[in-house]
Amino acid sequence: MSIALQIAQRINALQTEQFPTEALDWAKTAIIDMIGCALAGAPEDTTEIVLKAAATPVSDGCVVIGRGEKLRALDAALINGTAGHALDFDDTSKSMAGHPTVVIVPALLALAEQQQVSGRDFLNAYIVGVETATRIARGVNFHHYEKGWHPTATLGIFGAASACGWLLRLTDEEMMSALALCISHAAGVKSNFGSQTKPLHAGVAARHGLFAAQLAKGGFTASADAFEHPQGFFEVFNGKGNFHPERMLKNWAEPLDLLNPGISIKKYPCVYSVHGGIDAAIALAQQHKLKADDIAAVTVIMHRRRLLPHVQRQATSPLDAKFSLPYAVARALVDGRVLMEHFEGERFRDPEVRRVMEVVATKGHDDDSNDYGATVEVRLRDGTTFSHSVPAPLGRGPEIPLPMSMLREKFMDCASRTLDEIQSAKLFSVLEALQDAANMKDVAALLAVQPSVSRSRTIH
Amino acid sequence: MSIALQIAQRINALQTEQFPTEALDWAKTAIIDMIGCALAGAPEDTTEIVLKAAATPVSDGCVVIGRGEKLRALDAALINGTAGHALDFDDTSKSMAGHPTVVIVPALLALAEQQQVSGRDFLNAYIVGVETATRIARGVNFHHYEKGWHPTATLGIFGAASACGWLLRLTDEEMMSALALCISHAAGVKSNFGSQTKPLHAGVAARHGLFAAQLAKGGFTASADAFEHPQGFFEVFNGKGNFHPERMLKNWAEPLDLLNPGISIKKYPCVYSVHGGIDAAIALAQQHKLKADDIAAVTVIMHRRRLLPHVQRQATSPLDAKFSLPYAVARALVDGRVLMEHFEGERFRDPEVRRVMEVVATKGHDDDSNDYGATVEVRLRDGTTFSHSVPAPLGRGPEIPLPMSMLREKFMDCASRTLDEIQSAKLFSVLEALQDAANMKDVAALLAVQPSVSRSRTIH
Repeated sequence: MSIALQIAQRINALQTEQFPTEALDWAKTAIIDMIGCALAGAPEDTTEIVLKAAATPVSDGCVVIGRGEKLRALDAALINGTAGHALDFDDTSKSMAGHPTVVIVPALLALAEQQQVSGRDFLNAYIVGVETATRIARGVNFHHYEKGWHPTATLGIFGAASACGWLLRLTDEEMMSALALCISHAAGVKSNFGSQTKPLHAGVAARHGLFAAQLAKGGFTASADAFEHPQGFFEVFNGKGNFHPERMLKNWAEPLDLLNPGISIKKYPCVYSVHGGIDAAIALAQQHKLKADDIAAVTVIMHRRRLLPHVQRQATSPLDAKFSLPYAVARALVDGRVLMEHFEGERFRDPEVRRVMEVVATKGHDDDSNDYGATVEVRLRDGTTFSHSVPAPLGRGPEIPLPMSMLREKFMDCASRTLDEIQSAKLFSVLEALQDAANMKDVAALLAVQPSVSRSRTIH
Repeated sequence: MSIALQIAQRINALQTEQFPTEALDWAKTAIIDMIGCALAGAPEDTTEIVLKAAATPVSDGCVVIGRGEKLRALDAALINGTAGHALDFDDTSKSMAGHPTVVIVPALLALAEQQQVSGRDFLNAYIVGVETATRIARGVNFHHYEKGWHPTATLGIFGAASACGWLLRLTDEEMMSALALCISHAAGVKSNFGSQTKPLHAGVAARHGLFAAQLAKGGFTASADAFEHPQGFFEVFNGKGNFHPERMLKNWAEPLDLLNPGISIKKYPCVYSVHGGIDAAIALAQQHKLKADDIAAVTVIMHRRRLLPHVQRQATSPLDAKFSLPYAVARALVDGRVLMEHFEGERFRDPEVRRVMEVVATKGHDDDSNDYGATVEVRLRDGTTFSHSVPAPLGRGPEIPLPMSMLREKFMDCASRTLDEIQSAKLFSVLEALQDAANMKDVAALLAVQPSVSRSRTIH
């Protein structure tokens, strides 16, 4: 039996009605987080240019998160996926070595708007998508990632297709075709990281995942052996000796990948390597009510792998600030938080923050058991010293989940770029209780900017 | 200077107004042939399913070849590319080891409808696209093909993007971005050959080529070093030692790839390996007015590589007949021609043809200087024998070009599946004089089925 058919059978055999509450909670966390990121990314140039080149607004289309236009389903998936990844602020999966939710949710959302889909079915479909993408990932990673593919796209596409395929009730044969079709649409290389093309990868994968499921539902054919064929996914994308189908198929969903190893949620809109340092600095700021003028020295101690040159930069632009450890830690010490607005406009020049940046030093260690943790030491002018350590950034997987209050804070910060506070708060409440939503169309309606403040006029 | 920028500069430095007449003639041949194939492929299931899943007809859109719907530009490129490859009857390039025109023309046609583009500019842009796709191909082939990529898509996309980029007057920097963007959209593996996904590869590549050019025009960014980066096109798609940038850049357009080695035009809607045998058999049929009942034995002598098991089959279905050497040669001997209709419905069961098929034998040789030639020997019941040899199928590259009369015959046969004879004949005349067309929008209008006989009602 072909690999594609075996995966298809495992997808369709999932007992979705018995998914544990914990998995549903993680699904909600991921969905809330992704939608927040898309609300923040919606007005970005990246999103604007893609929308203008790819999509024509229609009156009866699907919602574009954080915007006023309606688009046809495939276009909505493209734009929401691109917007969701525009700021690189969305969740990550260890199994995938990439961002799963930003590909799955946009595809699923567009499809759900065309059907009568309950919140619970939406959550179930999302979990199916994560499981499929991450299991296929286990069969090819980490060679796949290290070789240069962008797994968010090349593996995420299977998540989008399987999630949509599950909602469309594809037969085993149809699901097999959808997966095999994805192999012919999997694309995206890491050499385009650092450009606007990276977020586009997520949008295109979301679009093509949905497309594959729809084509399969329509009876379109693809090759059953498209994974294991000598000119198929394994050989062409990974090459001999670099793939392990048995890892894909074994212990499918036991436990669900969403529960172990789970996903990580970014709390700050900047490079993930500095998240531990920010956590420790915020703890110090909150405990000691630090003043910039009082700070004489700051030392950040982290694993040497996290202290690469690209995080040692001095914040010469808003984008550069996103990769600056001195800026992030100084900002956390001065403000007690790190928000979207700190990476916009001239905020990277704030004099108080710059003063602290000047006294930030770093120390590296090689302790692999502490690979994402951080210690921040502060010495005041009067000689007092404080120190705080975190074992890992909060939100890094199920062992140290983000408290709902912090998820909400991030969401409200992101949403503030497009929605007003009342709409954002209502949306958060609805998403927090997504399992009770009767029809995802009503939820989707809350994601759009109201027509009265639509930005659609500005893009033509 | 990055490879992408060097290619971009070469594209923009092409002296298109000085392209030789011979190149313009080949461009017309390729365009006529591709449009004919799309007219024949338009009503195929493959095309129908993709159109239904991907596109919503709009009133002010671009023409869909051989259909009544109008679609937005990217959708039109997708559908026309898919239709053009649905029957695998379109031209091939030796440099690409794939089908160049079916990716370039659909993208270009959709773009041309949105702008004021002359026939001459359309031809120029097409030649630019072929040159770019085939030069990039020279840098990675034939490893790229043998590894399992479908070059029609993974290399054709560069042809579509550069052709559209040339029409959009992209700057060198923008053209560079368009090419780098293509690297992140290049997709399609040969394991999906034999399924409907193969023709979809062409459509998706056409769509994404146009998309890349439009995004670049809008200021979208991609990485300058996306070819040569350690996680870029060369390493990720081909791997160390399997690429040769110098072959891409050297002797750019001197001569144009369209003139040497040029493209091959398929004359018959069946596997290319049997084309030489059909040519020889038709010659015998025309010279000797053979009757099926008189034929006692037929021997086809060809290179052993052309006589693989998959062409020895006995035609058990219309699709199977497309790969049957006995059927093709018997049909040619009996009818003196091989047309689309011979691979439809129950025609593969025609008693006269089956009678001849029973006496068809094959002989293989290993003479590499005669790799696509064929000899057909016929012995009649009265003992008379005839023999005819062809050095290669007519249409195989510029050395044995297809006479215009045969190109027209193929075109009219293909077009008859969707257009009436008067419209087809008018269209052929216009395409034959494409360099004189003032506005491609008028030419495009001739490609659509008139609304009164539109098939659009049947697809919902």
